[in-house]
Amino acid sequence: MSNKMPPAHPFDDDKLREECGVFGVIGVTDAANFVALGLHALQHRGQEAGGIVTHSPETGFNQARRMGLVRDNFTSEKMMAMLPGSIGIGHVRYSTAGNKNQQTAIRDVQPFFGEFSMGGAAVAHNGNITNANSLRRELIERGSIFQSSSDTECIIHLMARSMGRNIPDRMEEALRKVEGAFSIVAMTRTKLIGCRDALGVRPLVLGKIGNGWALASESCALDIIGAEFVREIAPGEMVVITEKGVESHYPFRPNRARFCIFEHVYFSRPDSIVGGRSVYETRENIGRELAKEAPVEADIVCPVPDSGTPAAIGYSLQSGIPYAMGIIRNQYMGRTFIEPTEQIRNMGVRLKLNVNRALIKDKRVILVDDSVVRGTTSRKIKEMILDAGAKEVHFRIASPPTAWPCFYGVDTPQREKLLAATMTEDEMRSHLGVDSLKFISLDGLYRAVGEANGRDPNAPSYCDACFSGEYPVAPSDMIEQGFQAKTAAE
Amino acid sequence: MSNKMPPAHPFDDDKLREECGVFGVIGVTDAANFVALGLHALQHRGQEAGGIVTHSPETGFNQARRMGLVRDNFTSEKMMAMLPGSIGIGHVRYSTAGNKNQQTAIRDVQPFFGEFSMGGAAVAHNGNITNANSLRRELIERGSIFQSSSDTECIIHLMARSMGRNIPDRMEEALRKVEGAFSIVAMTRTKLIGCRDALGVRPLVLGKIGNGWALASESCALDIIGAEFVREIAPGEMVVITEKGVESHYPFRPNRARFCIFEHVYFSRPDSIVGGRSVYETRENIGRELAKEAPVEADIVCPVPDSGTPAAIGYSLQSGIPYAMGIIRNQYMGRTFIEPTEQIRNMGVRLKLNVNRALIKDKRVILVDDSVVRGTTSRKIKEMILDAGAKEVHFRIASPPTAWPCFYGVDTPQREKLLAATMTEDEMRSHLGVDSLKFISLDGLYRAVGEANGRDPNAPSYCDACFSGEYPVAPSDMIEQGFQAKTAAE
Amino acid sequence: MSNKMPPAHPFDDDKLREECGVFGVIGVTDAANFVALGLHALQHRGQEAGGIVTHSPETGFNQARRMGLVRDNFTSEKMMAMLPGSIGIGHVRYSTAGNKNQQTAIRDVQPFFGEFSMGGAAVAHNGNITNANSLRRELIERGSIFQSSSDTECIIHLMARSMGRNIPDRMEEALRKVEGAFSIVAMTRTKLIGCRDALGVRPLVLGKIGNGWALASESCALDIIGAEFVREIAPGEMVVITEKGVESHYPFRPNRARFCIFEHVYFSRPDSIVGGRSVYETRENIGRELAKEAPVEADIVCPVPDSGTPAAIGYSLQSGIPYAMGIIRNQYMGRTFIEPTEQIRNMGVRLKLNVNRALIKDKRVILVDDSVVRGTTSRKIKEMILDAGAKEVHFRIASPPTAWPCFYGVDTPQREKLLAATMTEDEMRSHLGVDSLKFISLDGLYRAVGEANGRDPNAPSYCDACFSGEYPVAPSDMIEQGFQAKTAAE
Amino acid sequence: MSNKMPPAHPFDDDKLREECGVFGVIGVTDAANFVALGLHALQHRGQEAGGIVTHSPETGFNQARRMGLVRDNFTSEKMMAMLPGSIGIGHVRYSTAGNKNQQTAIRDVQPFFGEFSMGGAAVAHNGNITNANSLRRELIERGSIFQSSSDTECIIHLMARSMGRNIPDRMEEALRKVEGAFSIVAMTRTKLIGCRDALGVRPLVLGKIGNGWALASESCALDIIGAEFVREIAPGEMVVITEKGVESHYPFRPNRARFCIFEHVYFSRPDSIVGGRSVYETRENIGRELAKEAPVEADIVCPVPDSGTPAAIGYSLQSGIPYAMGIIRNQYMGRTFIEPTEQIRNMGVRLKLNVNRALIKDKRVILVDDSVVRGTTSRKIKEMILDAGAKEVHFRIASPPTAWPCFYGVDTPQREKLLAATMTEDEMRSHLGVDSLKFISLDGLYRAVGEANGRDPNAPSYCDACFSGEYPVAPSDMIEQGFQAKTAAE
Repeated sequence: MSNKMPPAHPFDDDKLREECGVFGVIGVTDAANFVALGLHALQHRGQEAGGIVTHSPETGFNQARRMGLVRDNFTSEKMMAMLPGSIGIGHVRYSTAGNKNQQTAIRDVQPFFGEFSMGGAAVAHNGNITNANSLRRELIERGSIFQSSSDTECIIHLMARSMGRNIPDRMEEALRKVEGAFSIVAMTRTKLIGCRDALGVRPLVLGKIGNGWALASESCALDIIGAEFVREIAPGEMVVITEKGVESHYPFRPNRARFCIFEHVYFSRPDSIVGGRSVYETRENIGRELAKEAPVEADIVCPVPDSGTPAAIGYSLQSGIPYAMGIIRNQYMGRTFIEPTEQIRNMGVRLKLNVNRALIKDKRVILVDDSVVRGTTSRKIKEMILDAGAKEVHFRIASPPTAWPCFYGVDTPQREKLLAATMTEDEMRSHLGVDSLKFISLDGLYRAVGEANGRDPNAPSYCDACFSGEYPVAPSDMIEQGFQAKTAAE
Repeated sequence: MSNKMPPAHPFDDDKLREECGVFGVIGVTDAANFVALGLHALQHRGQEAGGIVTHSPETGFNQARRMGLVRDNFTSEKMMAMLPGSIGIGHVRYSTAGNKNQQTAIRDVQPFFGEFSMGGAAVAHNGNITNANSLRRELIERGSIFQSSSDTECIIHLMARSMGRNIPDRMEEALRKVEGAFSIVAMTRTKLIGCRDALGVRPLVLGKIGNGWALASESCALDIIGAEFVREIAPGEMVVITEKGVESHYPFRPNRARFCIFEHVYFSRPDSIVGGRSVYETRENIGRELAKEAPVEADIVCPVPDSGTPAAIGYSLQSGIPYAMGIIRNQYMGRTFIEPTEQIRNMGVRLKLNVNRALIKDKRVILVDDSVVRGTTSRKIKEMILDAGAKEVHFRIASPPTAWPCFYGVDTPQREKLLAATMTEDEMRSHLGVDSLKFISLDGLYRAVGEANGRDPNAPSYCDACFSGEYPVAPSDMIEQGFQAKTAAE
Repeated sequence: MSNKMPPAHPFDDDKLREECGVFGVIGVTDAANFVALGLHALQHRGQEAGGIVTHSPETGFNQARRMGLVRDNFTSEKMMAMLPGSIGIGHVRYSTAGNKNQQTAIRDVQPFFGEFSMGGAAVAHNGNITNANSLRRELIERGSIFQSSSDTECIIHLMARSMGRNIPDRMEEALRKVEGAFSIVAMTRTKLIGCRDALGVRPLVLGKIGNGWALASESCALDIIGAEFVREIAPGEMVVITEKGVESHYPFRPNRARFCIFEHVYFSRPDSIVGGRSVYETRENIGRELAKEAPVEADIVCPVPDSGTPAAIGYSLQSGIPYAMGIIRNQYMGRTFIEPTEQIRNMGVRLKLNVNRALIKDKRVILVDDSVVRGTTSRKIKEMILDAGAKEVHFRIASPPTAWPCFYGVDTPQREKLLAATMTEDEMRSHLGVDSLKFISLDGLYRAVGEANGRDPNAPSYCDACFSGEYPVAPSDMIEQGFQAKTAAE
Repeated sequence: MSNKMPPAHPFDDDKLREECGVFGVIGVTDAANFVALGLHALQHRGQEAGGIVTHSPETGFNQARRMGLVRDNFTSEKMMAMLPGSIGIGHVRYSTAGNKNQQTAIRDVQPFFGEFSMGGAAVAHNGNITNANSLRRELIERGSIFQSSSDTECIIHLMARSMGRNIPDRMEEALRKVEGAFSIVAMTRTKLIGCRDALGVRPLVLGKIGNGWALASESCALDIIGAEFVREIAPGEMVVITEKGVESHYPFRPNRARFCIFEHVYFSRPDSIVGGRSVYETRENIGRELAKEAPVEADIVCPVPDSGTPAAIGYSLQSGIPYAMGIIRNQYMGRTFIEPTEQIRNMGVRLKLNVNRALIKDKRVILVDDSVVRGTTSRKIKEMILDAGAKEVHFRIASPPTAWPCFYGVDTPQREKLLAATMTEDEMRSHLGVDSLKFISLDGLYRAVGEANGRDPNAPSYCDACFSGEYPVAPSDMIEQGFQAKTAAE
């Protein structure tokens, strides 16, 4: 257990935040090493905490959960000695709810593990169970005792109470009671299990390594361990992997897939293949579409590092305007300014980014960023650029206006904090104080992911609720708590 | 005092390493805040340890030295409360010699501080005193007791023994006894002092902030605190700054300047202005020169992140071959894998870099890197690229072959470990197993820094000893220890 | 929050070890302060770990569990801020089973806490549930998920599954299913609950503090908070305390009390009143009885510190032989030699005790100790005493031979490791190499606790299983695991 | 390496505090193990911090200094591996001046170590150099740089500047410039050196272990390592020990010895032999003298634990009144309540001591304590005793009234805080609110140490300045700072 306080991170509140990454492996020597590497590759999906569960015949289930980064907690000999076995799963997590103290937070770190009559199972998930509150109430009434405030734990309790004759059966039974958008990696003493919700909102991929197998949120986690990318787990599919091979189950009613389009915009790493496409290529395409939809005369195209980089390259290639590094990122930023002084806290984005003053001076600058959430960072960057002597500043945003919160495992501000929920594009331009501001259109975004005709409003092939307000899975718990869904008029 | 072990960093041994960054400020409220921010901006110059000294009339001199990053040690309210005062200096350091235990290491962390009859002074330096060994022997014989194994401490002892009538006089007297290449930031109770050696090998810049002043290794550290860049400290100049202003002294015999050209190639941040030039612009120029000197047909130009990026952009702009991110860097790498397992240690560069497989497949790829030192990383990158299905791999290196060690505050391997010291360019190409390998010429490098006629062999305007073997300051201690300088034949 | 490994304690394996102390308080401001003080006073009952649960209307249930001593973990402002409320319970524990790693150990630290439909409860206990294994199996089969390997957790699960209409009812229902010897302190949001098993084997006392109430394993924990001793909780009684007062329930069938006689011999603090008697007075009586039963000519009577002290005083008073401190205890011993070197580990008892050589030389010495378990310490002490020049060494032991393990919450070696299980008194004398060795008789011990006629073999009024092998509660789980109870022949 | 704050210890301010213990060993395998054990035995002489220096031909001098207890810092394999060699010295220390932060404190932890032309030396001392301030000023003027605020460091600088032809010569030269009361243990690469000041105020003993030798503040530190007590180092003697044997030097002018009598009263451990006498026997004698000088009718004699115990035994033996444990000490008290809450801080002595209520009730009690300094603890104990129902309370103090501060390495309050400096014995009795209060007379104390005629006022054989105000060494620095010595009238 770390003696660090949970890190302050006053600097990152202007992004949507993927909340989790999951990884699992079976059939390898010292599985925990592989899980640690896989989680390290998925660290961008959650930096607050991580956990690993393994199983070996000698020690049974082994669990370690820590606040902080994978590289700081899960790579030492000492830790590995605590996590023996040839099967393991892991989880990285970005904490959402404002947990008051670390004690509570550790209880909520996945994977969750429970012993029940068939020997127990561990479960980690990425996403959100939208009926977790009512499931929890029901389980507690029947005598289940919860260790955590996490909705993942519901799955373990449903499994413990199931009459299924083996653990995969019990998991199927549990999953049928669960609503939401999630990818799950689970394990028993001898089986690795993966599952995506019926719509396949969150990603999950399968890889082969030697005689073993791996499951990961993104393919970049297969690359780091040297596993071969096999395929995506299909929406609604549950795979049960033993050393004999991969067996598919389909616990849910068939449904049209609705992969999260924001995984392409921002969440996934550019070197990953998710939803069947190269993320980097998609982002470069977005930049090209943006250059077509929203051209402007300028001297240089600069990314807001690092997430705006591929789209800025695309914009430059399409427009012929030279690409340049107008903003430099501090490599040692991290997220761990521990209880910073007021003065340091006020530095905000300057701790992370600096303008390349010699380059920017007297230039007309196109800045390409992935998204605008609250707009606070965009304003500060604009000020830094103007302060360095830029003649003009044009913002080009590689996603449509983010006007609706996500309830599928993403940390979004309340609706009223989203700039696009309260302002038109022109009001935003004026609020940010830039010479021009253009977002890619929703159709343009669909073209960038390969749909030549743009979005089909009657049967959109992605979940784009954060842009459109159309939620493919009803956010039951949220509605119960008063969330107002989009009305016909909007 | 941290309870961490010094971090393992088995992954970074294939770069020359700047060993230090220095920063100082006077005339501001809570100087330690500014020093911490400045050091954070200079963190790329040293990640092993850092220290800050401040002075306030109430508490006298205050000192804190820690292993690890600035952001982890020097940003908390608690730390600031230990470092009150309106004047302060700081230092970040990359440890060179293999110190066996942390106890020793902490003793060697700068700034050094000593009380002597005029009230004491603290000193931090970037560079190397080339006659430190003989100075040390002499001082010990006369009864001085050393706290550390650092050569900086000689300066403090020379000052303590000086008969000078004030501290700047004592420092001048001390500096006259010292040989080497160094930039110094020092402080007394009321004065901030900066000094560069006679040749100006290492950088030092002056900034203005409100009514106060700042000194920094690079201008990016002025940007972060909002200070205005005023000028470089001149080679051989010693400035004494009080609240009244800046006073110049010239302790050394006048000499032709020989700024370190590797600061432009790799050490300095691209958003800095050092040696009177934009680092980013120089690097982009190097890429353009390289495209002229060593063109090749290919599909994409990719940087080895992050240091190869500006040169790759220049190469792309000059050659017209599209720029693309063929290698993606893990943002959460850090350098702090603590006592990693064998398996993780063996991952080496894969922990830090991943190939963008979807992009690379079936492409002819130009890879632009800043330098080749041992060549170990280059080999691994080549393997990763080929493994991802590239058709051809062409390395273009933004510096000439590194064939000689640096003795001026840079961590370089012994000569025999330098690939270019033992192989021709063609042997290196074959050793790395790439389709082509080209280094920029020394003349090309001089053109990129603005010398249209290339290098003047009779009076070169930079220190380029690591490429040329011509050392502008005799490395006395090293020669005493057996280093073989270049012979006429070489 | 400690970052220490569980301490090594190679020096204490020659005592029976009480495993737990419990404490609870209601109706006071900042209950956690009182709980911490109470646990500090009970620290001799368990030094491995401690935990506190409190409840406040604003924060709900708050829990903190830590490895290590109360004074190191639970006395800071910061900890108190995490544990608000006017009701709280706590637990100190000596870990018995060889838990391999700290991760597991923390899961097993009490109090346990579970949320269920009536708002949840926390439970801590001292003793042992002798049918825990079978209860656990049954609960798991019905879908309960255990967080820990502790038998206390059974009680929480039984409560969660109970149909009782309030929490005290649920606890009564749970307790009726439980067999064993235990004292329990529990709490709901508004009630403090205390309970002793039907035989009252383990102690539990009630105190009054201002308008509030306290429950504690021993009266010394009432003294430290300034509470007034009210009475013992009766064997088989369950008290439910609210701010209105104390209400008694009797969940168990009435039974004759069998308080643990070893609490008087060693476990309890001498300044406590337990089982209705002063522990100090009992121990002094034991010394007097011993002097009558086993007189010997000698120069001085010395205690083996600190537990032998009162009996040595009694022996001296009865015999007229002067009392003296022949062995001095190192006050800074603690139990936390962390990963000691071989050489230090081998020092064993010398780290803790030193002979007062000047006093001992040429004397005939009576050494009074509380008990002999394995005999390893006794041998080392004898050697130290002889080495210091004693003429004769006579051991007098303030308890009968310990020949049977305890299954009621006491850490005892396996039967074959108990010296008295394999040797006669004379064999032991010879094994220890002393001039004489005498244990108090079982009748003598009963006389010392006030039973003038000694022990009634047909209806003994204490649990003395460790001496007699007569277990008042069948140790079911142990028998299942192969423990061989006393045969008629023994 | 501790990450703890320096411990709060609000509970111990009512004792004089020995500030240091020293230990050294030569000619043994793994000297650091022996030093650690020796320091552990001397821990009562200083609990704030400790340090060890060793030397091995392979590693040179090795140093480790830590805040906290020996057992927590210096017993691990890992620490030993940092301290190789067959010669070593160590130091435990009680911090006196209120150092504001730990950073400073560590700088001041002994042994001090300096490299100078003959290879360096390390020095630790117990006591005080009374002209340290003026020595320090002089050394700084000549260019010496001090690492610490400790007066020990003067000795190292004097040695570094000496022209002596070997280190013992240099130490002799240094010692001749030093005034004060001190025992020193020092080492070079091959020699162990011990020295007592001319009056022999502080203790130092010599022991033999195998073919090696040990030096220690008290003989109990010889016992723990199994060394044989050889003799005391004589006042004014300097021993230089090599593997060949012990060589004596006499740097000071001969003088009559004045051993600190308070070592017998309180500082030394009862199992030590110091000043040629058994401490335990002396204390028992004090109790007997006290019973003769100040008899009273009572039911029981109780020590204030633990320091009052031997005198209470003596009082009981002389008076025939039964000895009993009326006050019980919490074994887990330690001194490390870290940042305690107000409520816990206010508990004061109750955290450490509890009254044995059942014993005390309705009794006439004689309480024997070693000394009265501020009287704060005595008042609290009296309250606890009365609160428990005692009929009468009689204090008997095993030392004369402490009316003067000590300047020879003991932490004493300012004179005006000493109860006996401002009140008569009768006023004290009334202030403490007890039925009677008697201190042993100064003559009685001298009789207890074997001087049948009591103290010779013209040539007292001990330093008793704390009682008599007669300082055998002028406290120069203190007088410079305004201390008022005793006038003829007093």
